Amino acid sequence: MITRSSLTHSAKSADSYAYDNETLHLRLRSAKGEIERVSLWIGDPYHWAEGGLDGGNLGGSDAHGWVGGNEVAMIHEGETEHHDHWFAEFKPPKRRSRYGFILYGKEGEKILFGEKRCADLSEPKKAETELSNLSNFYCFPYINPRDVLKTPNWVKDTIWYQIFPERFANGRPDISPINVQPWGTEPKSDNFMGGDLWGVIEKLDYLQDLGVNGLYLCPIFTANANHKYDTVDYYNVDPHFGGNEAFRALVTEAHQRGMKVMLDAVFNHIGTQSPLWLDVVEKGAESQYADWFWINKFPVYPDTPKEEWDFWNLNYETFGNVVEMPKLNTENEECRSYLLDVARHWVEEFNIDGWRLDVANEVDHAFWRDFRKVVKGVNPDCYILGEIWHEGMPWLRGDQYDSLMNYPLTQAITDYFALSAFDKHSFINAVNTSYMAYPRNVNEAMFNLLDSHDTTRILSLCQGDTRKAKLAYLFMFTQVGAPCIYYGGEIGMDGARSMGSENNRKCMEWNVENHDLDFKAFIKEMIALRKANPDLNQPNLDWVSVNDADCIAYRRAEHLFVLNNSEHDKQIELEGRSISIKAFGYLIETVQ
Amino acid sequence: MITRSSLTHSAKSADSYAYDNETLHLRLRSAKGEIERVSLWIGDPYHWAEGGLDGGNLGGSDAHGWVGGNEVAMIHEGETEHHDHWFAEFKPPKRRSRYGFILYGKEGEKILFGEKRCADLSEPKKAETELSNLSNFYCFPYINPRDVLKTPNWVKDTIWYQIFPERFANGRPDISPINVQPWGTEPKSDNFMGGDLWGVIEKLDYLQDLGVNGLYLCPIFTANANHKYDTVDYYNVDPHFGGNEAFRALVTEAHQRGMKVMLDAVFNHIGTQSPLWLDVVEKGAESQYADWFWINKFPVYPDTPKEEWDFWNLNYETFGNVVEMPKLNTENEECRSYLLDVARHWVEEFNIDGWRLDVANEVDHAFWRDFRKVVKGVNPDCYILGEIWHEGMPWLRGDQYDSLMNYPLTQAITDYFALSAFDKHSFINAVNTSYMAYPRNVNEAMFNLLDSHDTTRILSLCQGDTRKAKLAYLFMFTQVGAPCIYYGGEIGMDGARSMGSENNRKCMEWNVENHDLDFKAFIKEMIALRKANPDLNQPNLDWVSVNDADCIAYRRAEHLFVLNNSEHDKQIELEGRSISIKAFGYLIETVQ
Repeated sequence: MITRSSLTHSAKSADSYAYDNETLHLRLRSAKGEIERVSLWIGDPYHWAEGGLDGGNLGGSDAHGWVGGNEVAMIHEGETEHHDHWFAEFKPPKRRSRYGFILYGKEGEKILFGEKRCADLSEPKKAETELSNLSNFYCFPYINPRDVLKTPNWVKDTIWYQIFPERFANGRPDISPINVQPWGTEPKSDNFMGGDLWGVIEKLDYLQDLGVNGLYLCPIFTANANHKYDTVDYYNVDPHFGGNEAFRALVTEAHQRGMKVMLDAVFNHIGTQSPLWLDVVEKGAESQYADWFWINKFPVYPDTPKEEWDFWNLNYETFGNVVEMPKLNTENEECRSYLLDVARHWVEEFNIDGWRLDVANEVDHAFWRDFRKVVKGVNPDCYILGEIWHEGMPWLRGDQYDSLMNYPLTQAITDYFALSAFDKHSFINAVNTSYMAYPRNVNEAMFNLLDSHDTTRILSLCQGDTRKAKLAYLFMFTQVGAPCIYYGGEIGMDGARSMGSENNRKCMEWNVENHDLDFKAFIKEMIALRKANPDLNQPNLDWVSVNDADCIAYRRAEHLFVLNNSEHDKQIELEGRSISIKAFGYLIETVQ
Repeated sequence: MITRSSLTHSAKSADSYAYDNETLHLRLRSAKGEIERVSLWIGDPYHWAEGGLDGGNLGGSDAHGWVGGNEVAMIHEGETEHHDHWFAEFKPPKRRSRYGFILYGKEGEKILFGEKRCADLSEPKKAETELSNLSNFYCFPYINPRDVLKTPNWVKDTIWYQIFPERFANGRPDISPINVQPWGTEPKSDNFMGGDLWGVIEKLDYLQDLGVNGLYLCPIFTANANHKYDTVDYYNVDPHFGGNEAFRALVTEAHQRGMKVMLDAVFNHIGTQSPLWLDVVEKGAESQYADWFWINKFPVYPDTPKEEWDFWNLNYETFGNVVEMPKLNTENEECRSYLLDVARHWVEEFNIDGWRLDVANEVDHAFWRDFRKVVKGVNPDCYILGEIWHEGMPWLRGDQYDSLMNYPLTQAITDYFALSAFDKHSFINAVNTSYMAYPRNVNEAMFNLLDSHDTTRILSLCQGDTRKAKLAYLFMFTQVGAPCIYYGGEIGMDGARSMGSENNRKCMEWNVENHDLDFKAFIKEMIALRKANPDLNQPNLDWVSVNDADCIAYRRAEHLFVLNNSEHDKQIELEGRSISIKAFGYLIETVQ
């Protein structure tokens, strides 16, 4: 029996999108295990029989006589916890199409699933009637090239390295903050270690040797906190980081090495030490910047001690109830123009290659649409990456971002390999779910990560077990999208993030004696594997069946990967072969 | 048993949208008949327990400790063929929210349905863990006022009247085309009857008496065909219609009567007699307008007789393979600016109240976004109505149209009342489906219609049976959205549209002796009912159970409506009462 209530498709979504200017991708979801095979029924809406009605503009049951439909086989793209997922590609000759799905059930049923209804197709005459009724079908009216999401090609071949500048390398101790603490001091929310961009430049040889070709820098503009998410001046790099001079030198040096540079765009909020905000603090409603913020009441700071403020009812809107981060009103035209000019400035004047958008989901969509126009107008190859932790399709329709920080995949990987919170099937379901949530265009440009300045480091989640961490990295490096290493991850740095712990932001360890060289060699091997096989950036996984509850196997490009996620050495059966694999070990086989 | 594979929700869609700057609307779909009740679990993402993690920016299983969630009861919004639909409204105090759904099954189950997974909540300790794990939940990150769809308030109270100008009234025979035929000649695709805008002005008293307060005019700009969809000059009203002078007079006269005026925006394609296109025909690739179109090959017209052209492979893209309508390249900056200026011009200079967008779905989304900015920039109250026959959510996210021509409702009504192609339950399902497809904001501004210049007239679909047509009108007049009468519908005009018949565009009958005065009185009654009860424009139907397969009943505002869609007089039971109702008759009861 086909569970009709479980059939799902949505036009112009991750189920239905233009992959390029000629090609449609279409997906259908059905309840797991019920369907033998599925076909797409698709064709041009203006293809009518003699005596049928032209134009497709027909009301009621007049819409019969459509002869545009043809059957195209769909592939079984994968399965998730409760569903099978079906996929087909189609190039509509005139860019227009209407379509539905013909499902062949395991019990011999044949039904049509379209926009208007499910219809039984088992009786041929009825089938003919249903398949020629245009109004039964979904519509992808026209592939307009301008609406197609185009992501920069270089992203696919990028190995990212995320740097938290205050903690990566101190190149010029003379420009460190006066209260700087010795390199390696326990990190606190309010202490400084002196990292700067001259330091990053010094270490470019190290990064190049590692194989990295993309730098993602946490905020570098002038700000007070060590994380610099409380911007004071959007046009100037923090003097303690070396100012604009150091940044310009960094971009030049990076580009000479073939490395891209991505900056952090913090446009949701500003820092309370920004002159714009200080003007509002001082002048209240009279400030020319008063409408650049969301003010509920003037003066913005009440006349009571800060300890007594009700953070849930401040006089102004903030990021996450944080007093130091007033939310910007991106709906105010001047504020909007100002921020868009910042976006333009760093691409045009400093030649940056990407913007990572902080708290991207809380800023209005209209702002991001303008942002894309401005940034892509200067450099169509500039990468726009949204920080969104949940499902993010509403930002990925071609008009806003190129892709996302892939935290759902992060969670699947850490839950399985690091925390053993998932069994094998939950893991496979979660990985497949993360693919199915997005168009292939988006997946190919995903920013994959195991950890970041916002999370506990992967090695800590693995409780120091580098074998587990290796499996996590291996899995990430063999997924669609581009992998990122959080600084120091490659040499086995750990560090927890929690209320009270900022150990995930500790100083980069430069003493080679403290490097885990075996782990570093493994990371270099992963990078080399990835670079030698650009095909690893393929749309989806080809899971291979293994007779063991703790081992997974999959093919990607010309490789077979087998991972043993257990503390026991295993002897497993795989495609008729017997394979030995060590506890938390892996096997990479090249299939010719 | 709750069929987990059937649970569906999609963030930022018709399931999840901001109704206004403070209010979220959330919907869930489940397999029919399985669920006892449903709650929303919703709260601020930054609300964390002491010792939990702040900010919501937490990877992997770190995301525990969220204490923002609270239970809000959902109502059963309605049912469709295979589903129950659940609805709740919520005002997030800080505009931010994460949410999921708690389902109480008829067999005692209690489960959580969220973005990541279904989780069993029957065991209290497990339930607490799941409900405090932020990453389980859907996200509506922030209600940004700018992203909220705001539709003009006046639309809700509008009774539309659609006019096909060439066939409505001939006010000035001296400006008719030279080949004009006598009023009432059989309509053909290529003949003219002399209708003009002076004629419309003359008939405004008639329309005012009827109760109409919104005119939707099919295209009026200079063009060759009688339907004027083949624009020659976007800045001038066709001289045979009276030119700009007549139109300016019409808008003035209409506005004096409190009537709105909506024009047809044909921006998908142009007419082959337009000077822009003729320049391309003449100069080929050298024409400054060459890139305003989608040209595959020059010269655009091949050197063979037109009869031999392959309409599926013309040298240029068209609307629906129609040679006379070359498709405009709205991606070309100059073309785009030109069309946007046209859009601005008629709102700014002629004070029109709405634009109905022809073939709206085949023009790029980016164009419609700019269109909205331009039009709403001049007049935020200008109505933007898309002609889309299929599901149109991708155009209704606040950035493009206000609403749609509601053809899915048209189809449900005509299939049931006119054609008897639907049984009662299919009808109710189809009506409910059409509601569930859109946010309430969109539904309230829907353009409801029974017929148009593109369809067979309702009375013909009813095979001349005015009793059936009355039921259709009654139903339309009591739905959410604004109803439209296609010219002459009020006096019982019929006319089929099919290959070879243009009888749906015949001349308006002005001889009162040929008017069906009983029908006209009925239409006036409907208009009066609607105007006296603005509350009829309510979000959804409240169906009332009736013990008869051919009778439907529903409440809306303070009214009960009972409709007998059969050729037999009926005695029915309804809420414990016995009611007599004639064949194809109806009953309207005011409930105090």
